[in-house]
Amino acid sequence: MDVEQFRKAGYLAIDRICEYHHSLQERSVLSTVKPGYLKDHIPLAPPEEGEDFQVIADDYQKYIIPGLTHWQHPSFFAYFPAACTFEGILGDLYSSSITNPGFNWTSSPACTELETIVMDWAANLLGLSSAFSHTSGVGGGVIQTSASDSVLAVVVAARTRYLKDHPNTNLEDLVIYTTTQTHSVGSKAALILGLQLRSIEVKAEDEFSLREDALRNALQDDAKIGRKPFILIATIGSTSSGAVDNLADIREVVQDYPYLWVHVDAAWAGVALSCPEFRSVLHLQDINAFVNSICVNFHKWGLVNFDCSALWVRDRKKLTEALDITPIFLRTKQGDAGVVVDYRNWHLGLGRRFRSLKVWFVLRSYGVKGFQNHIRKSIVLTQKFTSLVNASDELSLVTRPSLALAVFRVVPKREGENQVTFSTESLNNLNRDVFARLSARRDIMLTQTSLNGIFCIRFAVGATRTNEGHIQDAYNIIVEEAKSALKTWKSALETCDQASNEVVAVI
Amino acid sequence: MDVEQFRKAGYLAIDRICEYHHSLQERSVLSTVKPGYLKDHIPLAPPEEGEDFQVIADDYQKYIIPGLTHWQHPSFFAYFPAACTFEGILGDLYSSSITNPGFNWTSSPACTELETIVMDWAANLLGLSSAFSHTSGVGGGVIQTSASDSVLAVVVAARTRYLKDHPNTNLEDLVIYTTTQTHSVGSKAALILGLQLRSIEVKAEDEFSLREDALRNALQDDAKIGRKPFILIATIGSTSSGAVDNLADIREVVQDYPYLWVHVDAAWAGVALSCPEFRSVLHLQDINAFVNSICVNFHKWGLVNFDCSALWVRDRKKLTEALDITPIFLRTKQGDAGVVVDYRNWHLGLGRRFRSLKVWFVLRSYGVKGFQNHIRKSIVLTQKFTSLVNASDELSLVTRPSLALAVFRVVPKREGENQVTFSTESLNNLNRDVFARLSARRDIMLTQTSLNGIFCIRFAVGATRTNEGHIQDAYNIIVEEAKSALKTWKSALETCDQASNEVVAVI
Repeated sequence: MDVEQFRKAGYLAIDRICEYHHSLQERSVLSTVKPGYLKDHIPLAPPEEGEDFQVIADDYQKYIIPGLTHWQHPSFFAYFPAACTFEGILGDLYSSSITNPGFNWTSSPACTELETIVMDWAANLLGLSSAFSHTSGVGGGVIQTSASDSVLAVVVAARTRYLKDHPNTNLEDLVIYTTTQTHSVGSKAALILGLQLRSIEVKAEDEFSLREDALRNALQDDAKIGRKPFILIATIGSTSSGAVDNLADIREVVQDYPYLWVHVDAAWAGVALSCPEFRSVLHLQDINAFVNSICVNFHKWGLVNFDCSALWVRDRKKLTEALDITPIFLRTKQGDAGVVVDYRNWHLGLGRRFRSLKVWFVLRSYGVKGFQNHIRKSIVLTQKFTSLVNASDELSLVTRPSLALAVFRVVPKREGENQVTFSTESLNNLNRDVFARLSARRDIMLTQTSLNGIFCIRFAVGATRTNEGHIQDAYNIIVEEAKSALKTWKSALETCDQASNEVVAVI
Repeated sequence: MDVEQFRKAGYLAIDRICEYHHSLQERSVLSTVKPGYLKDHIPLAPPEEGEDFQVIADDYQKYIIPGLTHWQHPSFFAYFPAACTFEGILGDLYSSSITNPGFNWTSSPACTELETIVMDWAANLLGLSSAFSHTSGVGGGVIQTSASDSVLAVVVAARTRYLKDHPNTNLEDLVIYTTTQTHSVGSKAALILGLQLRSIEVKAEDEFSLREDALRNALQDDAKIGRKPFILIATIGSTSSGAVDNLADIREVVQDYPYLWVHVDAAWAGVALSCPEFRSVLHLQDINAFVNSICVNFHKWGLVNFDCSALWVRDRKKLTEALDITPIFLRTKQGDAGVVVDYRNWHLGLGRRFRSLKVWFVLRSYGVKGFQNHIRKSIVLTQKFTSLVNASDELSLVTRPSLALAVFRVVPKREGENQVTFSTESLNNLNRDVFARLSARRDIMLTQTSLNGIFCIRFAVGATRTNEGHIQDAYNIIVEEAKSALKTWKSALETCDQASNEVVAVI
């Protein structure tokens, strides 16, 4: 393809992307394809001769688009949002056009320098202490591919720090601390590194937040049996329910455990720190006071296309000392003094894309106010949803909503006097049926979770095109399916009741 | 930015990318910016109010482009090529426009299915055995971010396999095998995983290839002292000199060591397997016969924009058993039987971009023949360069050229009768000066290396726009700098000679 053919194919791509985003809400959220659908349309081997790009672009429309799950659809409430903004697309486009593997400063000065600048911008946006900024000369930020990579990098840094000062420690004695609500990045890091994991139980009455006693007890237990906890992955906004670990409590405890690195996984909720009104509930003061590292995925709710997992560390040397494979005689004064940053020593891989461009584009085009508006809008829409749930005859919140995430289930309205309490298992079965009915639909997407044994349904808001109408529609759909499921469930209960007299169903 | 504003900004981006690629060879390869240049042009914090995108796009032209190292420049001969094709750019563009974190089949069927298909295409292109294809039902391929991620994933898989069958092994006894020519991905994996590394010495007379005796001796040594080598990272096309480990020898040895996982790092050279005439020298037969995994970075010499590190495994279960964090009760018959692939269990992270699109675009637009032509052209151009070197009065190859990589140094032509041999250190100093002179230029880029103590300069060909003229120009520039350096070096030697009589310089 020569330059002029690219211009033509590029214009076509832009037009088709416009058409895709224009028509997004008329599409179903979910595809109807069956496993293996694509192999019916694509030969087993690549063609011998090159093909015309128009044919290829048309095949994309014909065979790929119909097999997509539309994460940007306004009725997508599953998982967490996956940001896709026009500014992000353009950032990626310019970045692809110059392919710059900026593993050190020389291999592309702009790539390294823009990243240090926009990571400082992003720290500023979120109200992070200047200790986390590159301008501090000590801390700094780096864009990683995903929260998994961020966690792996800091676990390695924490392990290296621990072993440096406790050189005779057996690897088998090292323990990574998480809670039962920590994202699977924690257990995956333990699996990859071959280290033990302790998943501290958190309680529903604490809204699934890690509190002082639970952490202190775990540390005391482990001290007795010679295990060495060296990192705690605390969560600000858990995946299941948006739970927030109590960083004030954690701060209190870790004063006595100076070798416990505290990493904050704020992958989803961290972007809400951009709004001053949420900083207190998200423990910004404690984050700034003592945590060693924090990760915020701008590619979730933060308007920047995947991949853009922002990781800040309070002491960059802890990271580079653990990941630097440059022999000592190749180190430079400039690198050590922070005059230039060689990002290859800040993460697991070597090569890297020029990802800061899209952050720069997004933050400039939206401005701080536009970014805050997006966050606030999602939260207001979630409040609309929770108001509907609270006023509903069928639905009930399982725990307090957190920012733009609500977790609910179907619970039969108590009526009349023959009040009984249904077993957890019975209600779980009911809700599994509700979720199965919702999952069979193509016009909405939600995900399930389980909170200490209670089966629930998550409702996560954040696509840029979602508005009040989509929230109302979603609620209506959920209630419709809840009613159908309830009908089946109640009639099964009645049958059961007539047969065994063991359960009195209240209709 | 709304859809119509995006259309306008998108067209502009396409036009500017065309202009960039049109004008590429009139630019310098390297930027003239100094460390810290960018902070003079960008404020310390993001703007409060959103800015017009035209201003942002103009700032990209004004401040970012001048700070780039142009990896696609036809006179870029440094590191290894970083592919950037129009097809690759378009693949990334369509992919960004739909942001689809395809961590499992449901989250985007097309994303998963196209990846399995194009990985089979790519295996077919390279002549890999059908054992590595998804259609085998046992093996399969996955796109990783970088060769570092690929290596980490297979080291974890190999460690898990070893520990499963040797449950009482101390982690401290495990050893990763590499050679002294293995890319730093090997030592970085050891660093990250906290495991020992044994770097087996390879010799110049073997062209830096790992041979039978060296491997067998290392294994026997380690067996004696109770160390447990569990993976060997063999290289097909090393970074320093394009060295190829002798897989026939390795195959012979590992028959006696069934727990030694053999991973082939063919990150750079693997794409040359697309041409049947290079398959024998690259040990394709042995790769197909016995290795456990192989990695080929299409984002280097393989026409697909970063990131696209293709990893194939002979037994996908070894990978997924090591990386799967799905509880056993969530496993599905379909997943286990290979009806659907859940790629989250094939790599370190969870989220992932829709990277197979660009592979599909590239392989269809080029066709097998176009892909082969690109590889063959780079090799022919390298042969042109090595012919010039061989006929030169100043330059000398340090080891046999490998595909599209030549390693040379400056060695004074022996003249007259007062023949002396220069010390390695003296020649190294001369070549360091040559390299410093070349590095100070902006119109060409090369990288240095060291082969068993000999300082050398690498010449790696592969940018799509490089032609014979650029090779001749590069040679002329190198000779020009070599002559200047030689002059200085010889006059220093004469001074030294006159002063001490210890060295007789031959002029």
